[in-house]
Amino acid sequence: MTHIQQIKQYLPWAQTPLIINAPMSGAATSKLAVAVTRAGGLGHIGFLDDKKMLNTELEKAKRQLSDMAVTNGTLPIGVGVIVFGSPVSQWLSLFAAYKPAVVWLSFGTSREFQGWTEGIRGVSPDTKIWIQVGSVAAALDTARVCQPDALVLQGNDAGGHGHASGASIISLLPEVSDVLCKHRMSRIPLIAAGGIVEGRGVAAAIMLGAAGVVMGTRFLAAEETNLPPEYREAIINAVDGGVSTVRSRVFDETWGPSPWPVLYDGRCLRNASYDDVAAGIPMQEVVRRFHLRLRKGQEELDIKDSGSVWAGTGVGLVKKVEDAASIVNQVRLEAARRLEKGTSLDTHV
Amino acid sequence: MTHIQQIKQYLPWAQTPLIINAPMSGAATSKLAVAVTRAGGLGHIGFLDDKKMLNTELEKAKRQLSDMAVTNGTLPIGVGVIVFGSPVSQWLSLFAAYKPAVVWLSFGTSREFQGWTEGIRGVSPDTKIWIQVGSVAAALDTARVCQPDALVLQGNDAGGHGHASGASIISLLPEVSDVLCKHRMSRIPLIAAGGIVEGRGVAAAIMLGAAGVVMGTRFLAAEETNLPPEYREAIINAVDGGVSTVRSRVFDETWGPSPWPVLYDGRCLRNASYDDVAAGIPMQEVVRRFHLRLRKGQEELDIKDSGSVWAGTGVGLVKKVEDAASIVNQVRLEAARRLEKGTSLDTHV
Repeated sequence: MTHIQQIKQYLPWAQTPLIINAPMSGAATSKLAVAVTRAGGLGHIGFLDDKKMLNTELEKAKRQLSDMAVTNGTLPIGVGVIVFGSPVSQWLSLFAAYKPAVVWLSFGTSREFQGWTEGIRGVSPDTKIWIQVGSVAAALDTARVCQPDALVLQGNDAGGHGHASGASIISLLPEVSDVLCKHRMSRIPLIAAGGIVEGRGVAAAIMLGAAGVVMGTRFLAAEETNLPPEYREAIINAVDGGVSTVRSRVFDETWGPSPWPVLYDGRCLRNASYDDVAAGIPMQEVVRRFHLRLRKGQEELDIKDSGSVWAGTGVGLVKKVEDAASIVNQVRLEAARRLEKGTSLDTHV
Repeated sequence: MTHIQQIKQYLPWAQTPLIINAPMSGAATSKLAVAVTRAGGLGHIGFLDDKKMLNTELEKAKRQLSDMAVTNGTLPIGVGVIVFGSPVSQWLSLFAAYKPAVVWLSFGTSREFQGWTEGIRGVSPDTKIWIQVGSVAAALDTARVCQPDALVLQGNDAGGHGHASGASIISLLPEVSDVLCKHRMSRIPLIAAGGIVEGRGVAAAIMLGAAGVVMGTRFLAAEETNLPPEYREAIINAVDGGVSTVRSRVFDETWGPSPWPVLYDGRCLRNASYDDVAAGIPMQEVVRRFHLRLRKGQEELDIKDSGSVWAGTGVGLVKKVEDAASIVNQVRLEAARRLEKGTSLDTHV
């Protein structure tokens, strides 16, 4: 069985290339997840560190997708979980009640992932466990310890939190693929994330060996995404994604000591706090200036100055607000067209 | 005319997908360039900041490739030039004498590139000018000012010197492509560099819109590359390329104040000096420790400790020393096979 056949067994509605929205906390709610799944992708609800709120989103998704109920009784969406700081025991009842098709675990050690994997498989055996990692070592370790149903490989281009230092999917995917093969674990499908915003990136990820492709930044411009208008505007206006976004821990640290393990930082649109840090200003003063800007901003908020707009290097390719179904269908079509051209692909001038 | 047809007009021996070795200073000499060109790729001699030495390499290449003389009289290889700090006037006689098929300009402002472009086109009108950039803004500016025959887009995964902060080719290529199209300069072919070491990466780059693909790190393991055995061994042994390599200016600064513009740093295998910097040790002390290690190393040199092994994130995929022709042929074949599969590409488990 191929990886895609394997995935289609539990995501029977999915069309290929499989498009997945990143489980962006707060931004990817049931509204986005439902729209992406309905368009033949895999919709994800981002983690909400409040059980009642996540319950509400799952309930909404269940109601809206009742006509799509999958044979094994799973809810045809995925749910993201940020593992560090979240004791699995508190969350199991939610997964037992809603049985999402996929739970996407992220930001944990392989032991933490193991606890979550076993816990979820215990209460909802048909839920598939996808685990996000950002290095070859983490992929191998996690594959061995957890036997996940898929590994999500997050490259350095990704917006939001991720490995502070790492490769893009260009080398990460092939190296993980080879290492899993060497250790007889090539049955595990790989999902690519980071820097992919349109059909060319999706086609490239497929060539690298991905069985599915995640887009985060592109969906920030989806109508169904929960994002303040000025954030969406900043996303649409940003150009030159490798320059206008930067990786740093400052985007968390302006709010006080960051709870994030030191392994991780995050990619945001470059803002005034980042510029302060880059100029060598001590953190205490960076924070003071940040709060001054925040107070000033109560009259007229300049989010580019004081906000943290999480975005990946593909942000320069995001040009307009669209509904999620249009994004999914268009990207899938663009990718399929390029893949069909194959060796004969050559831009006519 | 397509981009590839355009390139084949001046590289008639080239086979597609076009494989190019990075002009790695010191490592890519005539021996490597000749072997890559003979295998149907585009061989490059790296820049040597000594006219006599570069002359010697060009003379060797000319002698060895005399049977391959191209109709317009160009020498069927490329030559890399590091532009900052190199006055064009001092180098023109060399390009006038040897007329390389391609001169690959790197690390300059668009104005510096312009001086070089006009200078070379003046003395060798059939030489094509390729210019390496690492951001969308630099690509657009350079395209406008220089009208290069190709832009080489270097992503963040690349080994050696490059933009300190930037996107990988996953988003860089599509964004540059769209911006050039918008400004009616889509006739300029794009060449992808950074993180590509084998067929999957090459196929991905083609999907992203590349007309040719550069590999540096992979060729560090080529028999024809000029590299001390312990450096080659470090390349072969390195795994988890996004973790074992890091970007930093320390790899230059241990030798004294770096002449490199602040825009750039370099990607190397992580070494003791990098770890010192990461631990917050002041630069003066980092340099002192480096020289202590160097002296100690005269008995038994530990290059992982004291050396700067320039390498990209693809280093974990480089597993053995091979001749350059085998690398070129194998990578081209792997890429072509994947591209042929196109939409039906799906790993069988």
